[in-house]
Amino acid sequence: MHTPRDLTPDTTRSADLAEAAATVLARLRARAPKVHCITNAVAQNFTANVLLAAGCVPSMTVDPEEIAAFVARADALLVNLGTLDRERRAATEIAVETAGKDNVPWVLDPVFVDRAPPRAAFARVLVGRGPRAVRLNAREFASLAEAEPTAEALASYAKTHATVMALSGETDLIADGTRLAGIANGHPLMAKVTAMGCAGSALVAACLAAEPDPWRAAAAGLLIIGVAGELAAAKAQGPGSFAVAILDTLYNLDEPALIQRAKVT
Amino acid sequence: MHTPRDLTPDTTRSADLAEAAATVLARLRARAPKVHCITNAVAQNFTANVLLAAGCVPSMTVDPEEIAAFVARADALLVNLGTLDRERRAATEIAVETAGKDNVPWVLDPVFVDRAPPRAAFARVLVGRGPRAVRLNAREFASLAEAEPTAEALASYAKTHATVMALSGETDLIADGTRLAGIANGHPLMAKVTAMGCAGSALVAACLAAEPDPWRAAAAGLLIIGVAGELAAAKAQGPGSFAVAILDTLYNLDEPALIQRAKVT
Amino acid sequence: MHTPRDLTPDTTRSADLAEAAATVLARLRARAPKVHCITNAVAQNFTANVLLAAGCVPSMTVDPEEIAAFVARADALLVNLGTLDRERRAATEIAVETAGKDNVPWVLDPVFVDRAPPRAAFARVLVGRGPRAVRLNAREFASLAEAEPTAEALASYAKTHATVMALSGETDLIADGTRLAGIANGHPLMAKVTAMGCAGSALVAACLAAEPDPWRAAAAGLLIIGVAGELAAAKAQGPGSFAVAILDTLYNLDEPALIQRAKVT
Repeated sequence: MHTPRDLTPDTTRSADLAEAAATVLARLRARAPKVHCITNAVAQNFTANVLLAAGCVPSMTVDPEEIAAFVARADALLVNLGTLDRERRAATEIAVETAGKDNVPWVLDPVFVDRAPPRAAFARVLVGRGPRAVRLNAREFASLAEAEPTAEALASYAKTHATVMALSGETDLIADGTRLAGIANGHPLMAKVTAMGCAGSALVAACLAAEPDPWRAAAAGLLIIGVAGELAAAKAQGPGSFAVAILDTLYNLDEPALIQRAKVT
Repeated sequence: MHTPRDLTPDTTRSADLAEAAATVLARLRARAPKVHCITNAVAQNFTANVLLAAGCVPSMTVDPEEIAAFVARADALLVNLGTLDRERRAATEIAVETAGKDNVPWVLDPVFVDRAPPRAAFARVLVGRGPRAVRLNAREFASLAEAEPTAEALASYAKTHATVMALSGETDLIADGTRLAGIANGHPLMAKVTAMGCAGSALVAACLAAEPDPWRAAAAGLLIIGVAGELAAAKAQGPGSFAVAILDTLYNLDEPALIQRAKVT
Repeated sequence: MHTPRDLTPDTTRSADLAEAAATVLARLRARAPKVHCITNAVAQNFTANVLLAAGCVPSMTVDPEEIAAFVARADALLVNLGTLDRERRAATEIAVETAGKDNVPWVLDPVFVDRAPPRAAFARVLVGRGPRAVRLNAREFASLAEAEPTAEALASYAKTHATVMALSGETDLIADGTRLAGIANGHPLMAKVTAMGCAGSALVAACLAAEPDPWRAAAAGLLIIGVAGELAAAKAQGPGSFAVAILDTLYNLDEPALIQRAKVT
């Protein structure tokens, strides 16, 4: 991770991000928050299983007529732009408005905005609607922000848009404009299972239901899935068994292991 | 299970439900019935795999223009209200009408009717269209029937609506207004895999293609998946490996094991 | 395989199909082609995971407004007619036109055309739009071509429509009107996992991005998944663990094993 001058990692705060993540995980299991996901067709099943494994109750409708009722009863919302279609676009408008009115925290995952300009435009509109966090990869950030995916650009974008930016990569970066953390957990097999990033975003949404500071919540979500990924890879023979093992690992992940394994910088 | 006064379990009949389930399973494997599913986007893949593992041939289109052709050629139909949208609603109307005309038995699974009032209203209309069975959980029953989820209320609802009610829970209850059975099989991990209940409903639909008595068919479906769940849990390390193991178990489940393991009350 | 008189297997060419498949697999891993899939809702997740395991980058949107942007940036396209709906139909029209204009090779998988006459009609129109290959099973071929699924009929259909026909079965047949190959790899468990055929078609599409001769590309795709299926079956306890194992096997499949295991006639 290249650390920009003005954003020296705050080690006092970073050091306890691992403990914060353990607390968040315990709360998910105790409280079973309802997490509504507008997510792509490829990711729906795996995302639901990741949320269930972490103790949450997922729901997944994307119907514009039902979405307000689901969001109003939810503890957190994910808006993922994969396989975006007219129905998902309409549902997102209503969901985001409902979330704003009912104070339901939400995460934006602007999947593949680098592939389709209209999707990037829609994502930019959504950033203005107040997501607590945006989870994305370097190509998606470059397209969304029209900037190189550096820690400085990330922090600047977070500050301008008053949100938390969570950039997945070899080291994940979480920035809210004043704070920056890096998470060096995870495993290359995570990129070989479809919807792994999408499920990570859903977990960030879940964490927002259990931790009021969105920067800590975003870090917790990526730490939990990153550590689970590392532990699962040790048992996997390839991406098939890895996808299975990460669900088992999330379900069984104990809090001391999470704290001990966390690589926060 | 709380047994209501007027509905003493009929042990003569209950005792042989396990054998009936074994017969139904053998028929599914021998006849490979075609089961068409209008089901939610989260459940489609897992449901298809459960049906295949049990020997059936699943199809899954929800397109209003194609649905009549698929239902007319099917041996059973599932209508699951998860991720209900305009297309699924329109397809359901046509599917249910086709099923009525062509005498294709069908099951209603009113997923999450407790979360969205319009969905509950639609479910009530569908109950009036003649499903052979309704498979749901306690919260969904309470919302659908506007009554406490007791065995009495279940039996009364079944009688009024001339259908079989199959209520999933620690002990599943199957009532048709005159008969009541409880099934105490299953495992807590079943609640940690998305679409497990949906797949159970699909299996009930499949059983309707192999057993003309819908009360016995519903009991068979829940027995088969409940026993498979117990056996699979013994080999699983968490919800990921459990979902894999239940497919393997269903595929390999032998009839004596099914009879021996069945906990029917 | 019944070998028709006029289509004696070309052993000189057939013999090296296994080596060609190994070369194609190496290229997929080296080049990571982008494969866009218009595929059915049941198959999206498994198809994406198969493509990832083989080294490709899948995308899956079916939105008519976005599809042109995705196809134009893709190296190959799959059009699978499962769960066909108005949106997928509209997206397919645009995708196929874009593919023609930008010279993106594409595969047609006419899923279940034997079940719904309008779908068969749509498939016939698409065959006229220039797919490099059509991957289907015997029932689907019989319905599409209105002919018995013999090798002769397959070759004749391929010739008339100037495409490659890849017919899955106990022995897969690949015909382009002048050449015919049979592939005797695979395992019965492949028919017990939903979307296995769909994923095979996606792999054929991927191979078109790595091999300019579509007959060799189609054979490579079916060889790769057939050999992976055989190896995976050896480790599986049923269809659940088989689906997991085939992803692991694809990911780890080494080229000598592929050549050694290939049963090309």
